[in-house]
Amino acid sequence: MKVGVIGGGQLGRMLALAGTPLGMEFSFLDPAPDACAAPVGRHLCAAYDARAELQELAETMDVVTFEFENVPSEAVAYLAQHVPVFPNAESLRIARDRLCEKTMFCELDIPVTAFANIESQQQLEQAVTEVGLPAILKTRTMGYDGKGQKVLRSMDDVVGAHAALGGVPCLLEAFVDFAGEVSVIAVRGHSGEVVCYPLAHNTHEGGVLVLSVASENHPLQTLAEDYARRVLEHLDYVGALGFEFFEVDGGLMANEIAPRVHNSGHWTIEGAECSQFENHLRAIAGLPLGSTSLIGYSAMVNCIGRMPANAQLMSLKDTHVHHYGKVEKPGRKVGHVTLRSSGTGQLQQAVAAVQALVSKQ
Amino acid sequence: MKVGVIGGGQLGRMLALAGTPLGMEFSFLDPAPDACAAPVGRHLCAAYDARAELQELAETMDVVTFEFENVPSEAVAYLAQHVPVFPNAESLRIARDRLCEKTMFCELDIPVTAFANIESQQQLEQAVTEVGLPAILKTRTMGYDGKGQKVLRSMDDVVGAHAALGGVPCLLEAFVDFAGEVSVIAVRGHSGEVVCYPLAHNTHEGGVLVLSVASENHPLQTLAEDYARRVLEHLDYVGALGFEFFEVDGGLMANEIAPRVHNSGHWTIEGAECSQFENHLRAIAGLPLGSTSLIGYSAMVNCIGRMPANAQLMSLKDTHVHHYGKVEKPGRKVGHVTLRSSGTGQLQQAVAAVQALVSKQ
Repeated sequence: MKVGVIGGGQLGRMLALAGTPLGMEFSFLDPAPDACAAPVGRHLCAAYDARAELQELAETMDVVTFEFENVPSEAVAYLAQHVPVFPNAESLRIARDRLCEKTMFCELDIPVTAFANIESQQQLEQAVTEVGLPAILKTRTMGYDGKGQKVLRSMDDVVGAHAALGGVPCLLEAFVDFAGEVSVIAVRGHSGEVVCYPLAHNTHEGGVLVLSVASENHPLQTLAEDYARRVLEHLDYVGALGFEFFEVDGGLMANEIAPRVHNSGHWTIEGAECSQFENHLRAIAGLPLGSTSLIGYSAMVNCIGRMPANAQLMSLKDTHVHHYGKVEKPGRKVGHVTLRSSGTGQLQQAVAAVQALVSKQ
Repeated sequence: MKVGVIGGGQLGRMLALAGTPLGMEFSFLDPAPDACAAPVGRHLCAAYDARAELQELAETMDVVTFEFENVPSEAVAYLAQHVPVFPNAESLRIARDRLCEKTMFCELDIPVTAFANIESQQQLEQAVTEVGLPAILKTRTMGYDGKGQKVLRSMDDVVGAHAALGGVPCLLEAFVDFAGEVSVIAVRGHSGEVVCYPLAHNTHEGGVLVLSVASENHPLQTLAEDYARRVLEHLDYVGALGFEFFEVDGGLMANEIAPRVHNSGHWTIEGAECSQFENHLRAIAGLPLGSTSLIGYSAMVNCIGRMPANAQLMSLKDTHVHHYGKVEKPGRKVGHVTLRSSGTGQLQQAVAAVQALVSKQ
């Protein structure tokens, strides 16, 4: 089976590493000459809307998928006319626009924080009086890893805030006083079959995920799965979906969805019977989904800016090293380390040891 | 780290799948245009002794290794002058010649069956009277998967036997009446550190491995490790070594070594904390070796001639599918399935279910 992937970053790379043993062959469309998925597939080095390359994918692939959501909608529409595309265009459209996403959550009775659509500074000033402060102004599209966001703590911060984010359509969200952040990776197959991984408890720094710890029997697992199923079924979704939540008052409040494999699910490569990458591929290929059961106790530490030396990481207990093959650059996710231990105490020690190496940089 | 691999078959493919996450980049020298490692690395499509390609590897790789032992010795010698080559030339020289191999076992006090060097039909007829019948005549070099062998049960079989194997140098081996076949994968690092995987119990059909089952606390584990260490230290070996034994009278008799990752260790991809592929790469890169501990209960079923459909394999419990990306052909190893279960009874059921699919072909 020939699989086309729009985007050739680390998610594409890990998809190919999971899918090659399944007999799949990968082609990546990515304008970056050093796309880090290139060593494990064919690299079409062109813009995401390059017609010749899209045509080639349309004509030669058995299925096309995405490793990021900000794909031009014309490209998706074109591909979908010629080849099965999963997840579908509607899922991408919703997931890449914070207003559409939040509106969908409301329609599906999934709790969200107060929000308002902002298309002008005047609208922002009005909305602040309704939503309250502190609040966060976010661009509706193209935001990731805390980019395209501005925290508004006082009316002083509101002055010129819309212009500071480029004057593009934005969403104002009331600050959530959360007890914790969790995410679920849910996968839906062609037949409607849904599997969910155990919740991950996530820690962000400066808007960037730094640590995910897989939970065992989390009290909010059932609720998270219920919310995820509502979204998957509503969108007639096929593939893996990352769904981030805030833990608030013993319940869950939806933060956002990502219509793809997700950073908070990287621990599944070693920590689950079948990884999120393999399950995404099984889903889009119409194959039976794999078990999401835990193997031991797992966590993932992101390596941001620089990878610690392999020799250091491998001299620690329970480590599994994942380089993305990227040039190191401050703030860039260049790899991750999975820790898989036989007990929670040992896992905590392993995480601390890896974090000490990561933070020394 | 740039890793050159002589040979681009399934072992090379699985090395690259294990090493890419470690930040390694792979180049394969293989004359087959459809080398199945090609999708996961750079493919130098040329003969194993092609000087220009060997020079390129010598000049651009950080380390060179092998995925099969029948590499021309001149090629190994040339590479070794310019780049670290593991395992070393002497290990390859011994492992590719059954006479050298058996002689080494004797020197290291590792039990072997009676054997004799055969360079003529006359020598064969003499040797048969000493070694006895039944016996097996094997070419000293280039044999694999039961090829280059002739079973001699009576004096009638002896007639013309040497010519039937091409008149090349051969080894006559007394038939071993074994209770079972087991193998150990042992890995030795730059520092002399050695790790061994749990013994696999192997089943061959027509000289070809069809099933390996990882053992837990096998009574012969310590003995096998002792023999493996003798060989590794004698050869100053670096990398993974497959060592096949016959179980005879409650002890072990050496069959053969393979100076590389080994088919009977494929279960380690899912069944051990760190796979034989990753540990081979760690060893040749001078990195600390990974844990060989079991995860659950594992076995591997080879798919010979044809892969069952993914949908069938994935609808069974505990399966992990590995395609080699090869054209299907009778007798060809085209993939394998690992079974990883939480108990031995469940594992036996899973193996039987996969074998039923494999044998239907």
